[in-house]
This record gives sequence, structure tokens and C-alpha cells, in this order.
Amino acid sequence: MSSVPEGVDFNEATAPAIVAGRLKAARDARLSEAMTGIVRHLHAVVAELRPSRDELRAVVSFLTDVGHACDDHRQEWVLLFDLLGVSALVEEINTVRPDRATRNTVRGPFYRSDAPRLPLGASISLDGRGEPLTVKGRVVDLDGTPVARATVETWQANAQGLFENQQPDLQPEFNLRGVFTTDDDGEFWYGSVKPSGYGVPCDGPVGELLTQLGYPLGRPAHLHFQISAPGFQTITTQVFDGDDPLLGEDAILGVRPDLIGNFREAEGQEGGRQWALDFTFVMARARREVRS
Amino acid sequence: MSSVPEGVDFNEATAPAIVAGRLKAARDARLSEAMTGIVRHLHAVVAELRPSRDELRAVVSFLTDVGHACDDHRQEWVLLFDLLGVSALVEEINTVRPDRATRNTVRGPFYRSDAPRLPLGASISLDGRGEPLTVKGRVVDLDGTPVARATVETWQANAQGLFENQQPDLQPEFNLRGVFTTDDDGEFWYGSVKPSGYGVPCDGPVGELLTQLGYPLGRPAHLHFQISAPGFQTITTQVFDGDDPLLGEDAILGVRPDLIGNFREAEGQEGGRQWALDFTFVMARARREVRS
Repeated sequence: MSSVPEGVDFNEATAPAIVAGRLKAARDARLSEAMTGIVRHLHAVVAELRPSRDELRAVVSFLTDVGHACDDHRQEWVLLFDLLGVSALVEEINTVRPDRATRNTVRGPFYRSDAPRLPLGASISLDGRGEPLTVKGRVVDLDGTPVARATVETWQANAQGLFENQQPDLQPEFNLRGVFTTDDDGEFWYGSVKPSGYGVPCDGPVGELLTQLGYPLGRPAHLHFQISAPGFQTITTQVFDGDDPLLGEDAILGVRPDLIGNFREAEGQEGGRQWALDFTFVMARARREVRS
Repeated sequence: MSSVPEGVDFNEATAPAIVAGRLKAARDARLSEAMTGIVRHLHAVVAELRPSRDELRAVVSFLTDVGHACDDHRQEWVLLFDLLGVSALVEEINTVRPDRATRNTVRGPFYRSDAPRLPLGASISLDGRGEPLTVKGRVVDLDGTPVARATVETWQANAQGLFENQQPDLQPEFNLRGVFTTDDDGEFWYGSVKPSGYGVPCDGPVGELLTQLGYPLGRPAHLHFQISAPGFQTITTQVFDGDDPLLGEDAILGVRPDLIGNFREAEGQEGGRQWALDFTFVMARARREVRS
């Protein structure tokens, strides 16, 4: 029998170093770094929580259920990462801007890149259902100079809190979506209806777990925007209804102080409430690529 | 518009506390503790690794693939936890024994609880294929006193590194499995064949990832044992071939110094090699339940 080889004395103290040693050989340095970091935290959380064998089995069972629930129409992993703030954190990390620039927040699963381009002033409400809302936006740079000919994509839920691609048989295609271009003053405007907040899907394993935990699963009402212009960092963001009671507990942690809008009641015509929103978006310049 | 509510200023610094606050309300204190710990490490690993949006998408894609690969015959999550040392760590954490007692190691996926009970000296090799191995075991307590009438379950791979339940059409059912009872001297013995090591399944997403990383995916040759006796902690362990070149890089991190056996070449009859293994298992007393 040969002597005892190194690295076989696996225990709580030695585990992280042993596994890290195995990951060092990787040809892909970034993958090796990522796995080493992930394993270190995995070992640390096991050492802290000290799960029983049954608890580890329950974790395996949950992870398996999450995977099995994913299909072409449902991404439970994205939902889990959204709800636990991982998606918001990755968005923050990848957006480095001066404080005065409008912040990004997650784009979410309801975006479509093929929405119709519309003239300024058009209404994106194709079924006319809901309380009318007039949106007036202004796109400027950090110095307050208007950004003309910026492309403004917008999409939103209806008064029931549902997007058109969630209800293909009940809403007209492209309802409450549109693409506009800012004028010489960096301004855009369009008609719409006031959106409602909504609950995230909670009939899958992620929703079941977080419901059991009493975790917030509602989203305050908001409008989505993606604003792009040559030479500027694209803004992908949401503007929230400042009067929504869920503002402080957005399920996917998308609310930021500078993204809270004032949906004010406008002078109505005959009957019914009408709303107006003015909002200014501040774009930061794209970092120049340095050519060698 | 109401004032900005607390907890909406989500950023890298505030994220862990905001999500922890949402988990505090949980009715299930253990689940809340577990999720809080998991989320803290999840945020920390994101802050350290600073993944791009594409990298986060790659993680989601990998996790989804792992889930989709799991079925009644395949548990990729268990494989991943085995390979990254999580299963071994949970086993360590849940086995608190004096140093002199035989250590547990993971039971693995090939165990069957319905193997036949056999008389001492019987052979568990039902197809007679491989180099004969005679196993002589001794079960004692921490003082060296024999543990009589202990139940010894054993199972192992064949000379090609495959268990009978991996090859239901090629090996007889219950090949290389058996249940024995120790005699008055705490001893048991049986005939078998020398097992080979083997590679863990590497045709799923976990194996593909770890192959890409150059991670060790082989297992040194070993015999599995599960030994139980009234009043003692059950030993679930593996005895390794001390001459196997993979001893230092067991894929599932099961090797421990006290689990290395000396598979010595025995006096052969005519032709062919023969082997013998003597091994002593040391049982620790079960903790008494305190009755109130």
C-alpha cells in the first residue's frame, strides 16, 4: 500500500482549499475564478447553516422542481433571481453612471423589440380601456442639453396589471407598446392609460416557497422605458407611480428614488378620471472605446 | 405624490439588508434563517465576481439545463453537490464522533436496502467474473470490544467499475451485494471480486461543465459498507484500495485516511491473481435520548 496521498483529509476546515485546488487547473480562467468563488460561498453557507441530510434533500428537491418548471413560457430561475435581488444587483454592477444620470433597473420579461414606431402624440392604447394617461417625457444629457432624435421604446401593463403578451387573446397585439423619437427639444409625448401594479407569478416552486415565507410578491404600477441615442449609454428603466402603496416593497426591487413619477390627476373632460405624467430622463455619455 | 418610502434605495451596499428585512417576516424560522444566509452569500458572490448580464444569463441557462437533465434515473443536482464537496461536508457536519471511530462518507446513489441476507463465508459474486477477493472484517467499539450481531450491508462495483443496478441486463440482480451478521467475535467474512474505480457520469450539464474545467471525475476503487447495531451510531462508509492511483483525487471527496484499505495479493491457487482485505470498523455509541 502506498502512503496516504495529500488532500484526502477532507473536513470542514480543509474542504474549501481542497476543492479550490481542484478548480485551479481550469483552462478558462474566468470560469475557474467564478466556480472557486461560488464553491467558497457554498461551503461557507453549509458550514453556517449546518443542514441535516433531510434538509439537503429538500434543497435538491426544490432545485429540481425549479428546473422542471422552466419551459419556453416560464423562467423560474430568472424569477428567483429577480425576487432575491440578484438581477437588480447585476444591473447595478453593470451600470456605472454619475449620480445625476437616470438609473437603470431590470428590463423584465415582457419587453418586445418589434413594437411599432409611432408619431409623437399617438396613443399606445389600442383598446381604449382604462383611465386615460398623457405622458410627456424629456431626454437630456448631464448638462441639461436636449437629446434630439433619441429612440424611446415604452411598454406597460394595462389597468388590470397585465401586458399584451400575457393575454394574446384578450388584448390587441402591441397594445400599450410603442417606439417614439424625441424632437429637437428632446421631448416626446403620447397617450396611454394608467397602468396597475400586479403580482408576480406565484403558482410555481419559487412563488410557493416565497409565499410560504410571507415575502412581498407584488409590483407597484410602472411604465417601462428603453431610451437609446448615439454616443449615450442606453437607459433601460421603469418609472413608478409615486402613490402606489406597494412602492416600498416592489417584489423585484426595481424602485429607485429618481424613478418615482408623479402621476397627477389632470383636468377631465366629461366624466371619468384622467392622468398626466411629466418625466425627465438624463442620459450619460457612452464610454469611448480606446483604439490601439 | 407621497414621500419616498424606506427601503427603495437598492444598491450594492444596501441590497443584503433590504432582502434580509423581507425574509424576517417568515413564519418558519428555520426557513427564514436558511434563506437569509443563502441570500447573503448569493449577494456576496455577485459583488465579488461582478458578473456581466451575459454571464448571469449563462448561469440561468446552466441551472435550467441541470434541472431539465434530472429525471427518475438521473439526479444532476446530487452529482453537482457530490463533486463540489457539499455532500461530503453535510455528511461531516452530521456525524459527530470521537477521532478513533470509523468515519462516515457519502452513501452514494447505488445503495439498495433489499439486498439478500447471506451466511458468513458466502460469495457475493454471482457471475464469478473478476479477480477473487476475500474480505475479512471486524466490528469493535471504541474500547476494542467486539460488536456481535451487527448488521453489515456491503455493495460494490465489479471489475469494470459498474454496479449491478447500472447494468440490469448484464449483471445478475444483487450481484456484488449482500447483508451479513457479525459473529460472537464481531467478525464477518465473505467472498467477492476486486472492484475497479470508475468515472462519474459526465454526459450531463454538470459533467460537461466540470470536464471543461479539467476537474477530477474519477473515483478510486472502493467497497461500500453500512454497519448498524443497537446502541451504536450506524457507520455508512467506503473502504478504498490504497494502491489506486486516483486515491488523492476522488471525484466525490469520499477518501479519508482511516478508510484506506490494504488490498494485498493473496496466495493464489492455479493461475490468476487473488486478493485479500482485512479491515476493522470502530463503532461509536449512539447518543442517548434524554427523556423528560
